[in-house]
Amino acid sequence: MRKRVYFDNASTTKVDEKVVREMLPYFSEIFGNASSQHDIGIKAKDALERSRRIIAKSIKANIGEIIFTSGGTEANNFALKGLFFSNYPQKNHIITTKIEHDSILNVCRWLETQGAKITYLDVDEEGFVDIEDIKKSITDKTFLVSIIHGNNEIGTIQDIEAIGKLCREKKVLFHTDACQSFTKVPINVGKQNLDLVTLNAHKIYGPKGVGALYIRDGIQITPFAHGGGHEKKLRSGTENIPGIVGFAKSVDISNEKDVRRMTTLRDKLIEGLLKIENVKLNGPVGDKRLCNNINVSFNNIEGEAIGGYLENERIYTSTGSACMSNTLQTSHVLKALGLSPLQSNSSLRISISKYTTEDDINYFLEKITKIVKKLRIISPLTK
Amino acid sequence: MRKRVYFDNASTTKVDEKVVREMLPYFSEIFGNASSQHDIGIKAKDALERSRRIIAKSIKANIGEIIFTSGGTEANNFALKGLFFSNYPQKNHIITTKIEHDSILNVCRWLETQGAKITYLDVDEEGFVDIEDIKKSITDKTFLVSIIHGNNEIGTIQDIEAIGKLCREKKVLFHTDACQSFTKVPINVGKQNLDLVTLNAHKIYGPKGVGALYIRDGIQITPFAHGGGHEKKLRSGTENIPGIVGFAKSVDISNEKDVRRMTTLRDKLIEGLLKIENVKLNGPVGDKRLCNNINVSFNNIEGEAIGGYLENERIYTSTGSACMSNTLQTSHVLKALGLSPLQSNSSLRISISKYTTEDDINYFLEKITKIVKKLRIISPLTK
Repeated sequence: MRKRVYFDNASTTKVDEKVVREMLPYFSEIFGNASSQHDIGIKAKDALERSRRIIAKSIKANIGEIIFTSGGTEANNFALKGLFFSNYPQKNHIITTKIEHDSILNVCRWLETQGAKITYLDVDEEGFVDIEDIKKSITDKTFLVSIIHGNNEIGTIQDIEAIGKLCREKKVLFHTDACQSFTKVPINVGKQNLDLVTLNAHKIYGPKGVGALYIRDGIQITPFAHGGGHEKKLRSGTENIPGIVGFAKSVDISNEKDVRRMTTLRDKLIEGLLKIENVKLNGPVGDKRLCNNINVSFNNIEGEAIGGYLENERIYTSTGSACMSNTLQTSHVLKALGLSPLQSNSSLRISISKYTTEDDINYFLEKITKIVKKLRIISPLTK
Repeated sequence: MRKRVYFDNASTTKVDEKVVREMLPYFSEIFGNASSQHDIGIKAKDALERSRRIIAKSIKANIGEIIFTSGGTEANNFALKGLFFSNYPQKNHIITTKIEHDSILNVCRWLETQGAKITYLDVDEEGFVDIEDIKKSITDKTFLVSIIHGNNEIGTIQDIEAIGKLCREKKVLFHTDACQSFTKVPINVGKQNLDLVTLNAHKIYGPKGVGALYIRDGIQITPFAHGGGHEKKLRSGTENIPGIVGFAKSVDISNEKDVRRMTTLRDKLIEGLLKIENVKLNGPVGDKRLCNNINVSFNNIEGEAIGGYLENERIYTSTGSACMSNTLQTSHVLKALGLSPLQSNSSLRISISKYTTEDDINYFLEKITKIVKKLRIISPLTK
């Protein structure tokens, strides 16, 4: 079998075998409904609360502040819609950025049809939002600032501590979507003054279909799913115990060492890519970039073409966020950085994982260097 | 090890080993994001669409009419909220019953705070809704009738074909929550004129955390989760491929023979229970009762006490729906049948499964007969 290199880990990751093993007993042995009062239910409930404790601890939250959801998109929808319904019509203004995930932006667009006012902040050429812009945008109608922690396309890590401090001073809630940064960048809800945080499992070697929303104690929020009263009456529905147990395990086995290894490999990969002529890195370098994200533009050749040739070599990358690749639209994130449609269409996202080896990086660099050379020769855009 | 008898299958079921086996490769082998354009994503997408076809076929729907959700509660929330937002303020009236699951009733209560008018129909002493009552309640503001197919507490199966016919004539949409009836009672969305149907996996030996909403082609409905545009832009979020594959497998292996076996065992169990003095069956007998549901009231003794003594014998039952057992409130379903709080509190739900054996039934009947006799002697209520 030829070597296979999966460099699309920002879309989703392979579930860690340890995670699968942890989940398995909860399908057919400890299979109870966590709401059942008998022993079989209580065992499920215990697993649920053990998992909740692990997630809470990982972001320095109280155990009761973690609400399990079906994933990051649900958590983002819950945060924004839930706060809109509990604040409207007294307050109706949300501040966000132009580089959020679609599960923030498209919720905002819908909320606009329901009476919300949204400010979509610009970012600089590396994807950073300006704290002063946030400050200037806050009005007496503002109830929420929602800004992504680590960007899913370009890896930019915002200074959430500074934003949290500002929001607390201004008495405005602060939500951050931490799907890409969770377990990679420290999150401390107290120190960073975070009010709501979106987390999910399948980007960190956990199962798909499970995530969580941290909601600081005391925050009034309209439930996302009404029903039997699960999750503090905020998110009803029989809890997905195997998924939640797997999520907790994926958090539990995450570690600093993997982050450091990925950072080294990321920088080696960036260094190699920048040796190719006419290649531009999108997003920042160093500590303010997610340890697993690389995004580059290859002037005058299509990212789609490069991706296709890479796939012939069993190397799997992405030309945008997976969530948008259906639509084949130009990335709103790269556009916000100031890239032209041509530059944007020549971009490629390479997202590595804890499984990535130095050998993978070398293999990738060897192949992509050849592919780019070849495409530059045949591309009509090169002239 | 002593015999263990799990009679709380209306709360949740043990996942079938065949289902787990089917799911397993999708965690760490075929782990792609179904939205990714490369081969690893396409394999996930193929599994997704194969699963969708199986679910669609099982209710005679078109493949594009199945939207995957995180479960029954989400599907019920989606149906009611989604249609409310797409109809309001032109239309604002929903007709439902007093015996719905909490994921319908509590959504209705919330929608009332948003401008909805809700009619909660009475049912007769066996739990049946009167078609004439529905007809009389429809106004020019009505956009939806939502009535549960098989009741989760008392097993009553409504005549959804008659309700569907009426709704179609009156040009009102008809939604049914079929979480308990799915794979047990035939569902044919065309013949029965169903517009929306809630389905889920974990009541039918599938995994928790996955369900579906059937939405008839052409129905205008506001998305439940906005984001990357998954599931026809109606329910964004990376698809839970292992869960969905497991759900489809659980549907695929469901069969008539299991239903017939459960029906026979159910009737044997009811027959045995009614031999105990002063026991009353709640809900109907025969074909109009779910094949796995038994609900009885033991006059003058607490259902909780019986449940506790049964648990000592490793027999697991329920005194209400699991979703409500947290709250220890009197069942709204039994109240709607006309039971007094005392009768209601003396009730027990026994829900069997395809794994239930004749031996389980005999063991249960032997134990409960003794327990009731004993409790009747010591109960202060007996006098």
